[in-house]
Amino acid sequence: MMDATTLILAGNRLALARLLTQVENDSPAGRAALAELFPHTGKAHLIGVTGAPGTGKSSLVNQLALHYRKTENKKVAIIAVDPSSPFTGGAVLGDRVRMRDLSGDDGVFIRSMASRGSVGGIAQTTAAFAQVFDAAGFEIVIIETVGAGQSEVDIARLAHTTLVVEAPGLGDDIQAIKAGILEIADVLVINKADRPGVEHTERALRSTLALAHPTPRVYRHHGQAMTVMVPAGAKNLPALEQDPSAAQSDMAIWIPPINKTVATEGKGIAEVAESIAKHAAHLHVTGDWASRDRARLRSELEASLQAALMSRFFENIQESKYNEMVEQVVGRTLSPHEAARKLLNGNSTQENV
Amino acid sequence: MMDATTLILAGNRLALARLLTQVENDSPAGRAALAELFPHTGKAHLIGVTGAPGTGKSSLVNQLALHYRKTENKKVAIIAVDPSSPFTGGAVLGDRVRMRDLSGDDGVFIRSMASRGSVGGIAQTTAAFAQVFDAAGFEIVIIETVGAGQSEVDIARLAHTTLVVEAPGLGDDIQAIKAGILEIADVLVINKADRPGVEHTERALRSTLALAHPTPRVYRHHGQAMTVMVPAGAKNLPALEQDPSAAQSDMAIWIPPINKTVATEGKGIAEVAESIAKHAAHLHVTGDWASRDRARLRSELEASLQAALMSRFFENIQESKYNEMVEQVVGRTLSPHEAARKLLNGNSTQENV
Repeated sequence: MMDATTLILAGNRLALARLLTQVENDSPAGRAALAELFPHTGKAHLIGVTGAPGTGKSSLVNQLALHYRKTENKKVAIIAVDPSSPFTGGAVLGDRVRMRDLSGDDGVFIRSMASRGSVGGIAQTTAAFAQVFDAAGFEIVIIETVGAGQSEVDIARLAHTTLVVEAPGLGDDIQAIKAGILEIADVLVINKADRPGVEHTERALRSTLALAHPTPRVYRHHGQAMTVMVPAGAKNLPALEQDPSAAQSDMAIWIPPINKTVATEGKGIAEVAESIAKHAAHLHVTGDWASRDRARLRSELEASLQAALMSRFFENIQESKYNEMVEQVVGRTLSPHEAARKLLNGNSTQENV
Repeated sequence: MMDATTLILAGNRLALARLLTQVENDSPAGRAALAELFPHTGKAHLIGVTGAPGTGKSSLVNQLALHYRKTENKKVAIIAVDPSSPFTGGAVLGDRVRMRDLSGDDGVFIRSMASRGSVGGIAQTTAAFAQVFDAAGFEIVIIETVGAGQSEVDIARLAHTTLVVEAPGLGDDIQAIKAGILEIADVLVINKADRPGVEHTERALRSTLALAHPTPRVYRHHGQAMTVMVPAGAKNLPALEQDPSAAQSDMAIWIPPINKTVATEGKGIAEVAESIAKHAAHLHVTGDWASRDRARLRSELEASLQAALMSRFFENIQESKYNEMVEQVVGRTLSPHEAARKLLNGNSTQENV
């Protein structure tokens, strides 16, 4: 019998599904397999897709997956991080709807994950899932999240390319979210673009974009090159002459494109895929692909360290001593911070931490 | 000159504002003051308010604050955790709007916080802010967050009472969120209740509630008491006779009430305040007030421990050795998990951690 790693590298779906569960449960077998698979990672394009509920993200993700299958014959994995149920582990309905579109295709693997536990945990598990799919030969790994909270920002940090999905008519209040979420957007999608209010949404996005992404342009002033940050849509500064040699550097500047889609009808999907491909090219040209990779792995290492340090701490401390500290904190005689310091210093005699 | 702690306990707003900034920056002075103030905490009612963008949460929070000021003469602090800008630290507009309603009242203090940094960080800073306000004599501390992600769940864990705000007509997709977010709700508010679709929203909430909060009821069966979980709205099970002695235990069961408001007109606010007061009474009767307090302090202690362990680790490790490990991970010869283990074992000769 072949071991799990070999089976997964050979494309066995059952072994893959089993490993994902082991990874989610953080079992020793899962961790061991993850370590074995790790040398085979680093090839997939990780695409984050986020946006408020009601924007039709899931339909967009499904259509995008279909596009990659049909047009580019790429293997696609979808990780649906589902905060709809922080406690009960839902997403069953969503999975069923997805199945209808994508079932029976061995080149697609969909895995949803309830956002149970800590965010550190979610981001870590998502990263591990992405690694498993990457090693298993999925060229496209789509990580879908709902909302605009910190978890989306954390998950966006995992992705090479982040899509932010909007839709017309979601209320004015939602504008408040955009400035922040736009900063993580590499590609903007206005889905449900057949709905009224699409021009308003696009205008609002463009003006927020202009603030979030001023364009660096190189000018010559008295013969000297200088870089000026020009807000998108601004007229060229009259006193400055644009440096013709700066034209080449345009490839190095990424202004998030705005794509309009009607995902339920498959409209505009090819354009989104093109934007994503252009962004990947941009990342490779600028070296950002490698630096995002490095940043991601560095924070994974830190998360592993943190988990290991905590579990070692709890292995080495007497439960009664820890509970005694908790009582002092609950009794308000010691602040949590002081209690932590005392616990660590108390340990230092044996452990010198 | 009095020190910061004394000034804050005496109600000095400038000292309070300064300390909040120090706490947000995690400065040594902030940490010291926090420890000094800690024995004065444990009196405030922490109220979490969350909901999707577009529900009018902020108006509701403002009206609630006005209510507590005018009707109950309680000091109110508002911590607005603002994920609208994870990077730029926004919320300025929101603050200005708030100021118009609540300015000039020394019994109200509003502080917004951009959701910069890690979620651990946000939850920790929010907890610290709540402690400062608590010590400074604010009887009501309202913690306002947007959305339905993990950060809201984390922040809800801080609060004694969590309000989840909904509004009619936010789209069907949003229903998917409810099951999860409802599980953290102690009080449900349908704001903008003058809008069409309010009946639909209420019906949807009630049916989700019935699933999320089955009612435990004690029955006698052949003379023996047994507890049956009855979904809200279900008929009594015919084969079982309800135990009359169980009537008293009704106080111990909390089914989240649904309140309807039009916050912009101040409608329904008193009813929401009444629901909140009832929930506080319920928490005291059942002992949940104390157990939520304990759980909150316990997780604060853990967060402090985690931060201290990490900073000690980085103090004790050679930078070159750490970077070498990062290179091995980036080069895919070592997984992040293996690298973490190696780093810790490498340290164990000196430190025995």
